[in-house]
Amino acid sequence: MTTSSIAGVTVTTQANVYFDGKCVSHGITFADGTKKSVGVVLPAELTFGTAAPEIMECVGGACEYRLAGTDAWVKSSAGEQFSVPGNTKFDIRVTAETGPYHYICHYG
Amino acid sequence: MTTSSIAGVTVTTQANVYFDGKCVSHGITFADGTKKSVGVVLPAELTFGTAAPEIMECVGGACEYRLAGTDAWVKSSAGEQFSVPGNTKFDIRVTAETGPYHYICHYG
Repeated sequence: MTTSSIAGVTVTTQANVYFDGKCVSHGITFADGTKKSVGVVLPAELTFGTAAPEIMECVGGACEYRLAGTDAWVKSSAGEQFSVPGNTKFDIRVTAETGPYHYICHYG
Repeated sequence: MTTSSIAGVTVTTQANVYFDGKCVSHGITFADGTKKSVGVVLPAELTFGTAAPEIMECVGGACEYRLAGTDAWVKSSAGEQFSVPGNTKFDIRVTAETGPYHYICHYG
């Protein structure tokens, strides 16, 4: 089951644009101060760095990801999530076949 | 003065991806049911169609727009807005120099 909407948040109006727009997200802040972001990755293969640990929850489309120190590409589709440690890198690839990968990024 | 954040909303987690990602937005819904969107246009020249009238409020970067039936390109920068009637088309162009055009789209 996918998370189609998130209520009771403050949205940052200016988007975060990464990799010339291959990844675009908007930050959201909850009443308790918790920050997350909602975003989309277009067809591309990208390498992201983390500061805090992240949980990437797929809410539409699909991607394959590869964590640092592993050789395996693992698929993540709508309703699924994967965890990435802090202070590391991970690869995401999105194909034209599956279309954009829509996600919620949970931190910490 | 720009609107940097919007409080008390429900955000739709799946992005709207237009023109192969040259425009990406996320829908937001207010407690009273009012819908708006927050989005970004990357460097490109695009033609949008409207259903309801729209007010495009710039919250970062800049664009030039041209309304249907006019020849003039008009600049819109952070803190400025422009209105588009319903059931029409308008052109937006964003250059690499000004960078992405970040906006809030108000309907109705």
